[in-house]
Amino acid sequence: MNRLSVIIPGYSFAGISAGIKKSGADDLALVFSENVAVTAGVFTINKIKAAPVKISINRIASQKGQAIIINSGNANACTGARGYSDAEEMTEKTAKALGISSELVYASSTGVIGRPLPIEKIRKALPELVKKLSPSALEQVASAIMTTDTFAKISSKKINIKGKTGTIAGIAKGAGMICPNMATMLCFMFTDIAVKPRALDSALREAVENSFNRITIDNDMSTNDMALIMSNGSLKNTSITKSSPLYRKFASALSDVTYDLAKMIVEDGEGATKLVEIEVKGARTETDAKKVARSVANSMLVKTAIYGRDPNWGRIIAAVGYSGVDINEKEIDIYLNKVKLVNKGVGTKKEEIARNILANKNIALTIDLSAGRKSAKVLTCDLTEKYIAINAHYTT
Amino acid sequence: MNRLSVIIPGYSFAGISAGIKKSGADDLALVFSENVAVTAGVFTINKIKAAPVKISINRIASQKGQAIIINSGNANACTGARGYSDAEEMTEKTAKALGISSELVYASSTGVIGRPLPIEKIRKALPELVKKLSPSALEQVASAIMTTDTFAKISSKKINIKGKTGTIAGIAKGAGMICPNMATMLCFMFTDIAVKPRALDSALREAVENSFNRITIDNDMSTNDMALIMSNGSLKNTSITKSSPLYRKFASALSDVTYDLAKMIVEDGEGATKLVEIEVKGARTETDAKKVARSVANSMLVKTAIYGRDPNWGRIIAAVGYSGVDINEKEIDIYLNKVKLVNKGVGTKKEEIARNILANKNIALTIDLSAGRKSAKVLTCDLTEKYIAINAHYTT
Repeated sequence: MNRLSVIIPGYSFAGISAGIKKSGADDLALVFSENVAVTAGVFTINKIKAAPVKISINRIASQKGQAIIINSGNANACTGARGYSDAEEMTEKTAKALGISSELVYASSTGVIGRPLPIEKIRKALPELVKKLSPSALEQVASAIMTTDTFAKISSKKINIKGKTGTIAGIAKGAGMICPNMATMLCFMFTDIAVKPRALDSALREAVENSFNRITIDNDMSTNDMALIMSNGSLKNTSITKSSPLYRKFASALSDVTYDLAKMIVEDGEGATKLVEIEVKGARTETDAKKVARSVANSMLVKTAIYGRDPNWGRIIAAVGYSGVDINEKEIDIYLNKVKLVNKGVGTKKEEIARNILANKNIALTIDLSAGRKSAKVLTCDLTEKYIAINAHYTT
Repeated sequence: MNRLSVIIPGYSFAGISAGIKKSGADDLALVFSENVAVTAGVFTINKIKAAPVKISINRIASQKGQAIIINSGNANACTGARGYSDAEEMTEKTAKALGISSELVYASSTGVIGRPLPIEKIRKALPELVKKLSPSALEQVASAIMTTDTFAKISSKKINIKGKTGTIAGIAKGAGMICPNMATMLCFMFTDIAVKPRALDSALREAVENSFNRITIDNDMSTNDMALIMSNGSLKNTSITKSSPLYRKFASALSDVTYDLAKMIVEDGEGATKLVEIEVKGARTETDAKKVARSVANSMLVKTAIYGRDPNWGRIIAAVGYSGVDINEKEIDIYLNKVKLVNKGVGTKKEEIARNILANKNIALTIDLSAGRKSAKVLTCDLTEKYIAINAHYTT
């Protein structure tokens, strides 16, 4: 797995500045597959959905796609009828420039909600964007979809498919409005490995559940988020079905890519200085384990304590207590890395060691409920003054 | 209603420094009623409960009380068997010094979780505390229970009970770990008006539901919180029952006192600079209205935007969308004070007026879902760098 731009046979990419962002940074990106690709997607469960999300949800029913047009700097959400027709126009003009049907073009936007999309800027920039399409420009797309992200997020993995080397690559953007239940970022993935629609959809859902649905930065869920995957079959393998022996290998490699991207999103959480992997063990059910892990991961008091290198485990146990899961205080053990901070609900006086552990950038927090055999992991980050500063002044 | 210390016939109060807080500020308080008072209480629903909470929950079953001993600077939570016996000793030593049964003494603690209570300091300070009891020292108690609070919170109201003037007074502490569902602060209320146990309990639950259960600062729920009310009958009125004509008058005055205290708690939210009253109207059910209001009130992105005077209503509508309530984007209106920011899901371009409104300390945010006739209010505050600074370094 590496974070450098990679070539995925049969795909080309481009990213440019269309002048949507005031900063002049790249804000318009295009992905094109030379063949019609099997396409699967998952979308925000927010009841308020941006116009491009609505259009993409309609189009995913065909399980086909050939291009994705993405802008940053404007979410095209809560923009009424005009927003919807702007998003439609984005896909139509893209389709025309590429010489394909607009039904094969997905649209995606990210940025400020509630402002009209400057569609004329997109219209004007499209010819140059199409001209710049190149197989080696995945990183340009990863950069052009950034908002408050501080680095482009790319991950790829190669797997052996009956003697041929197939590639799965993905890019993502995150930074704010990150909470569990998907719907929290943009992610686009591409593979040359041929996969049947149902198998691709199933592998995508599994990968998202174990990665993007397990991260939290601020518990705010966006109106724009989506994860799309295209499989264009350029590898010319026999298409993988859910019952193929290769399905598990493909799904697991895809999960590796999404987990890697999810981790980068948390590392790059707005203002974050630390990455915290919270594992809840000894739960009666996996649902219980997830609930407790998310309750701790979303606690502002836990997140600020971690930022301040303050081994205040009382806040951790309080968040366990209000998670809604029936727990027994006298059975709870808490570990920071391998150091036991709490034994059977009572502190072990390891505060000084814990303070040193909290100086690290990567922290493992383990909570053992001693109530069963199920476990779950959630990734989160600390909460800092910088998060406030970034978000107090984002539209201005 | 006023915030100055008041006299409530038949009660005396004291607050001193027992040396629990490093700062040397007052940290031990006592309330004594000359008669055994009818007593009602509500307690944290956190599964992890501090030792004094466990003891007080046991004692409230008798519906009687005569004294409350409260310390700040240490929560006596997650302190195991020793913590429980320390809390018992607090009530026993207090009972002995006052010459009453320990079953009539309630205990309450607030502060850092997981550290042993310095019971020897409390033991040593008790004689002086009892000696200092005075009818005019309610404010001392309000100060001694503070943790990160910046001002003492007192509210009182006088009501006419068949020609006699009765008093209801309350004190509270809040500041952090504040989220809906009670269990978020300490509140002690006292009245000389005689009220029957069931009526007192019912009036307290109603008052808490409409005040402390409607505020949120950081969505963290404490292990220690409780609201107690004592009615000692010093007014010598005929005891109010739930079917008395006076019940509604009493309950409504009590609700006024708790709402006033709840508002002070939010105003004094850690690092808060603004008080935001969120009203959701036009909901199908009150539960829907509350869910939407809390979703918006807890959104870190909304709270940081308000702090930054940023009229980013997209964050508000996104939080409405992920509240879990079935809403129709095209029916949503949003107002800041009386100015319509969003009409039928689309912005009205009143950003400049909105920015001026956000310069105020008190802000009214109204969300009309246009789906029904139910409404609900929630109070919240903005989220600032100071909240982070306070909470990143609290135990150190």
